[in-house]
Amino acid sequence: MTMLPVEGFNHPTNEFPIYEILTNEGLEKIHQTSMQILSEVGIAFYDEDSKILCRENGLKVDGDIIYFDPEMVMEYIAKAPSQFTQISRKPERSVSIGGSHMVFAPVYGPPFVYDLQNGRRIATLEDFQNFVKLSYLSPYLHHSGGTVVEPNDIPVDVRHLHMLFAHIKYSDKPFMGSVTSPENARDSVELCKILYGEDRIRDNPALISLININSPRQFDDRMLGALRVYAQENQATIITPFVLAGAMAPVTIAGAIAQQNAEILAGIVYSQMINPGAPVVYGSFSTNMDFLSGSPVLGSPESQMIISISGQLARKYNLPYRSGGMFTSSKLTDAQAATESMMTMMPAINSHVNFVLHAAGWLDSGMVAGYEKFMLDCEVLGMLHKYLEGIDMSDEALALEVQREIPPGGHFLITDHTLRHFRTAFYQAELFDYKVYDSWVAAGSKGALQLANDAYKAALAEYEPPGLDAGIEEELLEYIKIRSGELVRA
Amino acid sequence: MTMLPVEGFNHPTNEFPIYEILTNEGLEKIHQTSMQILSEVGIAFYDEDSKILCRENGLKVDGDIIYFDPEMVMEYIAKAPSQFTQISRKPERSVSIGGSHMVFAPVYGPPFVYDLQNGRRIATLEDFQNFVKLSYLSPYLHHSGGTVVEPNDIPVDVRHLHMLFAHIKYSDKPFMGSVTSPENARDSVELCKILYGEDRIRDNPALISLININSPRQFDDRMLGALRVYAQENQATIITPFVLAGAMAPVTIAGAIAQQNAEILAGIVYSQMINPGAPVVYGSFSTNMDFLSGSPVLGSPESQMIISISGQLARKYNLPYRSGGMFTSSKLTDAQAATESMMTMMPAINSHVNFVLHAAGWLDSGMVAGYEKFMLDCEVLGMLHKYLEGIDMSDEALALEVQREIPPGGHFLITDHTLRHFRTAFYQAELFDYKVYDSWVAAGSKGALQLANDAYKAALAEYEPPGLDAGIEEELLEYIKIRSGELVRA
Repeated sequence: MTMLPVEGFNHPTNEFPIYEILTNEGLEKIHQTSMQILSEVGIAFYDEDSKILCRENGLKVDGDIIYFDPEMVMEYIAKAPSQFTQISRKPERSVSIGGSHMVFAPVYGPPFVYDLQNGRRIATLEDFQNFVKLSYLSPYLHHSGGTVVEPNDIPVDVRHLHMLFAHIKYSDKPFMGSVTSPENARDSVELCKILYGEDRIRDNPALISLININSPRQFDDRMLGALRVYAQENQATIITPFVLAGAMAPVTIAGAIAQQNAEILAGIVYSQMINPGAPVVYGSFSTNMDFLSGSPVLGSPESQMIISISGQLARKYNLPYRSGGMFTSSKLTDAQAATESMMTMMPAINSHVNFVLHAAGWLDSGMVAGYEKFMLDCEVLGMLHKYLEGIDMSDEALALEVQREIPPGGHFLITDHTLRHFRTAFYQAELFDYKVYDSWVAAGSKGALQLANDAYKAALAEYEPPGLDAGIEEELLEYIKIRSGELVRA
Repeated sequence: MTMLPVEGFNHPTNEFPIYEILTNEGLEKIHQTSMQILSEVGIAFYDEDSKILCRENGLKVDGDIIYFDPEMVMEYIAKAPSQFTQISRKPERSVSIGGSHMVFAPVYGPPFVYDLQNGRRIATLEDFQNFVKLSYLSPYLHHSGGTVVEPNDIPVDVRHLHMLFAHIKYSDKPFMGSVTSPENARDSVELCKILYGEDRIRDNPALISLININSPRQFDDRMLGALRVYAQENQATIITPFVLAGAMAPVTIAGAIAQQNAEILAGIVYSQMINPGAPVVYGSFSTNMDFLSGSPVLGSPESQMIISISGQLARKYNLPYRSGGMFTSSKLTDAQAATESMMTMMPAINSHVNFVLHAAGWLDSGMVAGYEKFMLDCEVLGMLHKYLEGIDMSDEALALEVQREIPPGGHFLITDHTLRHFRTAFYQAELFDYKVYDSWVAAGSKGALQLANDAYKAALAEYEPPGLDAGIEEELLEYIKIRSGELVRA
């Protein structure tokens, strides 16, 4: 892992087969159950404009409940693109979302941060900027994310403006828009129009934004309003319920997925009603609850199954898929954290997730962004990049001739073949230790946690901004200044 | 995770699809390269009896090098069973090896142990007994293993007798035989004849033993001698090279696997020459080296690919498959350890490995058996057991009727459906924490490492032996006494 912005940057594709654990028959059962939830039980839309639109489009609306006819659901879903490109100001940093592409983005939403020296504390704008900088520096994150942490030292009303500016100023990777209100979504779009030009963001989205669903089966006016703004402007959205089996969904995996699927499809239908062809992502973020504490279990074997099956559903509907992440419930950057993170990241790879939010930094059920966790997650992402390079099956790689060279018990290290390949053959970790014990002790007995602590501080110390056109920066700041004035007056 | 010996115990099958990452064309290339290594380059057998047997069976022998004709290789391999049962003295603790069965066994071979209070220290017979006891107590380990640690306080010549007796005395799960010499293999078989009766171990093996290959392409006389004893007695063996790509094998993954495959097949052919139909397992334990330290990298993305592809080869030859494990190079039971362990355990599940050695306790490249690591690994194995239970796709699980009961935004916790299922719906971890931060602090801010430390001591304190027939115990001790006398005199 080297923390340096890579030129000619590109994000990986997954050319391995897709691992699917559910039979077609099982998949059809979930689909049918979801269709019955949509058409017979219905989904609540707590927003007058949305209800009017649904009625105009021939849906049955009864009070707040929308009933979705299955045939119509499939018609609207078919309008959404199976793949799209989110632009950035450097063309080589644009990301393709869908198909065999994989995009890794940092953690989203934590109100707290953690590092070894300071422990757990309230996140600030400086922390926000730090995680944007670290995401910019990692060659294994392809995206700057959204609310990487909550900048709690900035007033809530104008927070979105500061976050968006930090993404633009401290990174040149694509980023996410605000979803806290339709007005904040509008601000997000306007800033992107300044940054990229209005025409450019019409053709390809400059923003991808996270539309949450308040499970079970309800969309609030803020989320529907933000979704409406983004869909109208042809900006991408990720429709993701927060389903906790046993709390906001049935306690059974199949039942929880059926509900999740119905909720996602309701959101996607709505986006396509607003603007047919608007880019939208099928998002799964579902797990089970811990009955002892009442808390979510992040990184459970149950969520592993949900990641896999939800991917099968996304592909059934021909939609880009968001899921997975380096999740954990642990408060510490410890064995629990790493186990849980791998339990949800490995199936994300095997299920060919297209957009992995929370791919670095997540701690304590998402309450905390950990500096050391972020670095260790990036190291794992580096390993997964190496894995995604696949296997060379050429004669040179099969190396029969080298076998003829080396006697039984001989050593391959000194062969020309090894010399030709050793630089690129294996992933070279920097935060994991492979030394023999005595050498490790002689080097200070440093564990991965300590190495990660050293590394994040070194990376921030060496950070240099990517550069931003001075005229554009001035225009952005002018917009932010005017809007801040309006929002503070309001 | 509850550390109690479970009655009516059974080990899991994996009913999920097998995940295969290599194309059939790629698989065929590896097979063909291996056949050329076997027939054109040859494998060294440093053992006169073995060379005589090979010659008698029509193989070309030149000095120490045996050349294996591809057609003959396939004929001998076809004689080996695709599945067999290793017996234990409680019928329900017998294990099936092959097919969709999965057997998890503890770590094998560490000369050191580690725990939080005492740090890293030389392993003793007491540690050996402790790990046998802990393996007996875990419902997620189906096997007592072999050299769970090296009992360094016992003279080398008689160490195998003490280890075997500890497995028999402190557990009733199946165990592994000694491979340090043909004589020690013979002792292992004789003790099993006393324990089970001579007839019973003829039909089904009582032992499974680890035959290592000194890569590249050489078998030493001790391993060949032990293999000969076990095959003659119809006891199971696992043929496993220790291949470190870049050191004892080509630096390329495809080349390393081709060599590994040739070496395994040479051992299997030899076992079938001795006794056609003798149970034998296709064993992969291959990874890459770290070019900076010269040490093996345990838990690398490269080894993840090797686990997957080796499984495809084992199935091509219709042989039971050993691979995977909770590997790590880390000296600490930390995030590195857990990441690497998951990196090699998850593909073992998806590749349907039949016998997972080192499934609990491995630390520091196998130099150390960690008490806390053992407990945390068992917790992960518990999660994987839950995963292997699969997904209930019944109407009850799809839970459409529950959706009709619960209004939008309602809570599923209090439904009859949740009451019917919550006890078995999810895996209940004991060493991982899910509490909200303040509750976690109030409970002492204990991390997984501390919880595991508490748990292993509690488990050992509560341990009760499984019971052993007094007459058999006397006979076993008499045999050990006589042999110890002979071995000390010798």
